[in-house]
Amino acid sequence: MKKAINVGLIGFGTVGTGVVKLLHDNAELIKKRLGRNLVIKAIADIDTKRKRSVSLRDEQLTGDAAVILNDPDISIVIELMGGFEPAKSFIIEAMKNRKHVVTANKALLATHGNEIFRVADEEKVNIGFEASVGGTIPIIKTLKESLAANNIKSIWGIMNGTSNYILSKMTEENKPFHDVLREAQELGHAEADPTYDIEGIDTAHKLAIILALSYGKNVCLDDIYCEGISGINRQDIEFARELDYVVKLLAIEIQRDAQIEARIHPTMIPLDHILASVNGNYNAFHVVGDASDSVFLYGQGSGMMPTASAVVSDLIDISRDMEKGIWRRVPLRSYCKNEIDDIQLLPMEEVITNYYFRFSAVDRPGVLSKISGILGAHNISIASVIQKGRKTEGTVPIVMTTHRARESNVQKALDEINKLDMVQGRTVLIRIEDPRLT
Amino acid sequence: MKKAINVGLIGFGTVGTGVVKLLHDNAELIKKRLGRNLVIKAIADIDTKRKRSVSLRDEQLTGDAAVILNDPDISIVIELMGGFEPAKSFIIEAMKNRKHVVTANKALLATHGNEIFRVADEEKVNIGFEASVGGTIPIIKTLKESLAANNIKSIWGIMNGTSNYILSKMTEENKPFHDVLREAQELGHAEADPTYDIEGIDTAHKLAIILALSYGKNVCLDDIYCEGISGINRQDIEFARELDYVVKLLAIEIQRDAQIEARIHPTMIPLDHILASVNGNYNAFHVVGDASDSVFLYGQGSGMMPTASAVVSDLIDISRDMEKGIWRRVPLRSYCKNEIDDIQLLPMEEVITNYYFRFSAVDRPGVLSKISGILGAHNISIASVIQKGRKTEGTVPIVMTTHRARESNVQKALDEINKLDMVQGRTVLIRIEDPRLT
Repeated sequence: MKKAINVGLIGFGTVGTGVVKLLHDNAELIKKRLGRNLVIKAIADIDTKRKRSVSLRDEQLTGDAAVILNDPDISIVIELMGGFEPAKSFIIEAMKNRKHVVTANKALLATHGNEIFRVADEEKVNIGFEASVGGTIPIIKTLKESLAANNIKSIWGIMNGTSNYILSKMTEENKPFHDVLREAQELGHAEADPTYDIEGIDTAHKLAIILALSYGKNVCLDDIYCEGISGINRQDIEFARELDYVVKLLAIEIQRDAQIEARIHPTMIPLDHILASVNGNYNAFHVVGDASDSVFLYGQGSGMMPTASAVVSDLIDISRDMEKGIWRRVPLRSYCKNEIDDIQLLPMEEVITNYYFRFSAVDRPGVLSKISGILGAHNISIASVIQKGRKTEGTVPIVMTTHRARESNVQKALDEINKLDMVQGRTVLIRIEDPRLT
Repeated sequence: MKKAINVGLIGFGTVGTGVVKLLHDNAELIKKRLGRNLVIKAIADIDTKRKRSVSLRDEQLTGDAAVILNDPDISIVIELMGGFEPAKSFIIEAMKNRKHVVTANKALLATHGNEIFRVADEEKVNIGFEASVGGTIPIIKTLKESLAANNIKSIWGIMNGTSNYILSKMTEENKPFHDVLREAQELGHAEADPTYDIEGIDTAHKLAIILALSYGKNVCLDDIYCEGISGINRQDIEFARELDYVVKLLAIEIQRDAQIEARIHPTMIPLDHILASVNGNYNAFHVVGDASDSVFLYGQGSGMMPTASAVVSDLIDISRDMEKGIWRRVPLRSYCKNEIDDIQLLPMEEVITNYYFRFSAVDRPGVLSKISGILGAHNISIASVIQKGRKTEGTVPIVMTTHRARESNVQKALDEINKLDMVQGRTVLIRIEDPRLT
């Protein structure tokens, strides 16, 4: 029997506990696949007292990450503490000590990935980050390996379980956003501070990582257009249903010649598209390659064991490389490092898509003609109109969907329309997409 | 620039043409990912005259496969001719000449995989076969690598595009089997001799491969229970709809302690399960791992470019290994070769599931009580009954669904029922499954 591969774990929270549990429970299976044991030698966490749902065997539990970082017997360090510091310093130090790294830290990779990947290349170590995007779904490996022969034409992803849970509940139970958010918090589906999830920031971290892999690029997180779901009203979810759409928080990347469109926003998608059937906590990715055509991946985007499954798959991957005496076979972003350059994103104003508007109009003759006149003047052509008698606080909702229009024109038209006396409150704008038609 | 990796292609049909096209069209992209060129040096096909939808560049087209098999400059041989012989001899010879192999030949791997894999191990070469199951869908890599930390609890797959196309059309357009089959043949969605597809044989080939990877086993194709779709009547599709089900040809594997359930048959699945929305030519896999939970993969299971995408992903995979000076890093069936043993399949008679029956009964008092009496005597408990007045050729259809029952009991009960005077023709049996409840 060959010597075991020793692993150190930094961060003993939910996912960390899942990793320990999985390496215990499936030790025999993993050994059959790998030919040797994969063993956690030490675990570091600031909280060494708390009871976890796993009993430790021979693992040393310490409050000091240096125990792991300086142990020459440890070949792979798993970072599951999250956040920027000290996670970043620990990862860099691990790599400088010639240890491979496995991490689920999307915020860190999206923000400091370029630097971290550079150090990994210099130190000739590998970084596994399958768990950083889509939890258990093998989206990273699929992009880096299975679709490696493809130009990625587009990706349409539901990448945040909390937002999808909230939108699903709002749709199924016809409840307002804040009620569903409160329930989600009580059930543990949303954080006490849900900002990262509901404002699309977590989704932006994931899209930044996916963009880098899809095109072999350095990506600047701040350049990605990002709009969350906190402004979504149940009235719009109802109108969506009437128009045969459902509202999802989508992360979208589309190749437009040399430029890439990258945006995150609530999106109406057709009810009969497979993404529309992704409900609750689930994540999903609709990837379109120029040869593969559509590939759709779906699964648990978070949770103790599903995320642990992705972390341990990275451990096995790196161990299989070590077993063969190599330090890495697939470049970190799927492209050779001398091919990586900066991504060119299409400015949001130049995006062309379909739109849903809901105007709160004073119920007075001429309002429809006024609104449609302004839209027409900005080259925005109307596809459908719903106007019903139902008054809400002195106004009636007028709903319109458009044919393909340019974002800059839409913004200018809405600015004008929002200034009209006969229009009260801000007009609601939700973009409409059908991945099959792009 | 490093030396190109030379590839030989045997079999210049639809998929072969797609591979040549993809390596031409995306040569630049593949070089950026791999760090060197991937070049087809020679192509062998018995038909060297036919016009293909791709112009050859420097590729030599020959009628003699030996040109490829004996060329020391060729490192990887792609076999896309299909069938058993001479494909098998070519693959074995390529391996004996120390060439890696990429193949989409599921019939060959399902039938002679154990032998072929043994030679690959002896000769220290790799075999890529991602394209053999699920076309462009990365099911092989997902099982061998991404889910490597998981016990595979079950897999539920739609693995044959032709059958799924036919069942989808029968459902959508309410047409009988033979009409839809004829249309599918005219449109090129079904072969002139459709036996392999519609009788589930092609699906069995794929399930045999998937079983071997899921559990690291030698699999004997003939042990897999296999029932096709040629007996499916549109009346049953209508009743399915009434019961909130849809009929799909499913390949099913379920881990039952030390034994594995493996079966292929038309299956009623709930309309709200994501597999129910897989229509037309598409393939899909619902995989349940003990840690990952459900992972769902979906895409084109056949076609020139989607299949070529999978073939070239294998080429890139093997080339990335070669680039690092290793011959293979992941065992062929995901388990180390000394861990592989023979699979233990659960006999079909011992399967326990839910059933749909349609009896053609003479419209006479007592028939329902007689049928339900026989079922009860065999420990089969009825979940629902539909009996409507509509007479068909002197009989009325009586539809029943059952709670969980044992296959052997069901077969005994139906034997008795089919012998009754008041029952005419053979009773229709379709199994009912919900992957979420297993």
